[in-house]
Amino acid sequence: MTVDPRASLNAKELQRLLDAALSLSDLCREVIADAVSEGVDVNAKIDRSLVTNADLAAERAFRERLGQRFPDMGVQGEEFGGTNPDSPWQWVIDPVDGTSDFARGIPIWGSIIGLFFHGEPVVGVIDHPPLGLRLHAAFGQGAYRGSERLSLSDYDSGRNDSDACVGLPSRSNFIRRNDDGAAFDALAAHFPDFRVFRSCLTHAYAATGQLDVALEWDVNLWDVAATRIIVEEAGGRYILLRKRAHSEAGMLYCAVFGRPALADRIAAMLSAHI
Amino acid sequence: MTVDPRASLNAKELQRLLDAALSLSDLCREVIADAVSEGVDVNAKIDRSLVTNADLAAERAFRERLGQRFPDMGVQGEEFGGTNPDSPWQWVIDPVDGTSDFARGIPIWGSIIGLFFHGEPVVGVIDHPPLGLRLHAAFGQGAYRGSERLSLSDYDSGRNDSDACVGLPSRSNFIRRNDDGAAFDALAAHFPDFRVFRSCLTHAYAATGQLDVALEWDVNLWDVAATRIIVEEAGGRYILLRKRAHSEAGMLYCAVFGRPALADRIAAMLSAHI
Repeated sequence: MTVDPRASLNAKELQRLLDAALSLSDLCREVIADAVSEGVDVNAKIDRSLVTNADLAAERAFRERLGQRFPDMGVQGEEFGGTNPDSPWQWVIDPVDGTSDFARGIPIWGSIIGLFFHGEPVVGVIDHPPLGLRLHAAFGQGAYRGSERLSLSDYDSGRNDSDACVGLPSRSNFIRRNDDGAAFDALAAHFPDFRVFRSCLTHAYAATGQLDVALEWDVNLWDVAATRIIVEEAGGRYILLRKRAHSEAGMLYCAVFGRPALADRIAAMLSAHI
Repeated sequence: MTVDPRASLNAKELQRLLDAALSLSDLCREVIADAVSEGVDVNAKIDRSLVTNADLAAERAFRERLGQRFPDMGVQGEEFGGTNPDSPWQWVIDPVDGTSDFARGIPIWGSIIGLFFHGEPVVGVIDHPPLGLRLHAAFGQGAYRGSERLSLSDYDSGRNDSDACVGLPSRSNFIRRNDDGAAFDALAAHFPDFRVFRSCLTHAYAATGQLDVALEWDVNLWDVAATRIIVEEAGGRYILLRKRAHSEAGMLYCAVFGRPALADRIAAMLSAHI
């Protein structure tokens, strides 16, 4: 039987790490607000995804702060790669998740902070500054929206799936790195009342229960860096559907998360596609 | 050659009507905020769509105000049907468009106010109180976000359609009243980078240019009551794709709107499905 490495962490240490993550989230808000007030400058990267001055400034500020407070811990981010890759502690950050929405002024983007210990999530923050919505969680300590503790009820098995409220990625996620369009089409046909937000806002709502379940498809670790710890600490299920290395995009993750019975059922439904 | 009946309206009269619509929009914000502070009470209607105390209170307040100010004009709304149906002037209102999001606390719902004269849109307001986003327009007077006049650029024909940013209804719109799932699937395959918001927020963004184009499918007049006037006054195109009577749901509309060249192309693309 394998022991969860997180079992060795005590509540005081977890609280200190969570406080650090929340302080990083505050810093991120400030740096992004400054970048917005200076004017957002958008550039396309080689893979045609977008990067802005806000992404870059926030990731730099994160790294500087983390380098001061936790010089031996690793940091992984979208824009500047990894540092201290051999540390058991890894901060995984995405200051502007949903850069395309951010660049367009669509207020659905979010900031993601996750801390992993020997590969297991310990602390997570998902923050949506324009919506005033911030969730946080630490291992064994619960998940919170502000001061309100989250507690997900399970999916009512008597409900009709056509009424399930599901957060999906856009179809571009399914065809960008792979030929998985049929998986999107199957989901859209079975759960027709879906939302598509191009950011971690669906993750936040899957943890609060405002959506019944959400999915991600072929995203990087930083895109889901806070999702598992927040959803699990809220009483939900996080199921990794697939993890594999892509020659250009690095390690890519597919996952479903939210109310346990529905997440389980979707994972079973998708087994033919993964 | 038919004359546009709106050509007989002068700027002063249009301003008076626009001011009335904006004042109604303020009233709507207040009534909904009151209902929220009292606690939102959600009920399912016979067609399984939702209605809340906020919808009902706001539509009652609309009707009371309109009855005082414009007693001879008609009013059409989702919850209480029509009054003065033979008047050339018809206010068409949907105080809470996106009731399902509203009931879940997802801040993407909006309030819609439209005024029609002999069936042509004269004034429109789309308001998203939680997002602080309000658009308004009057015939020949331009469209505005607050004090900023909107001016849509056309779609750059050199862009790859896979990068077009399109707002789609969920697939449930396509299958609820009709067997149009193939139209959704064709759109999702051709424009994979889409958002799905379950409200008129996509309409607002199609008018501001934050989305390139948006669609609605088999919705009622109140769902698009402000869309055509706002999009057209912003310099965009509004194309009615289909209008037909449904035995239970009344008259249902399919439309595409936003940057002209892309709206035109989508209308052509969908001709096989309508």
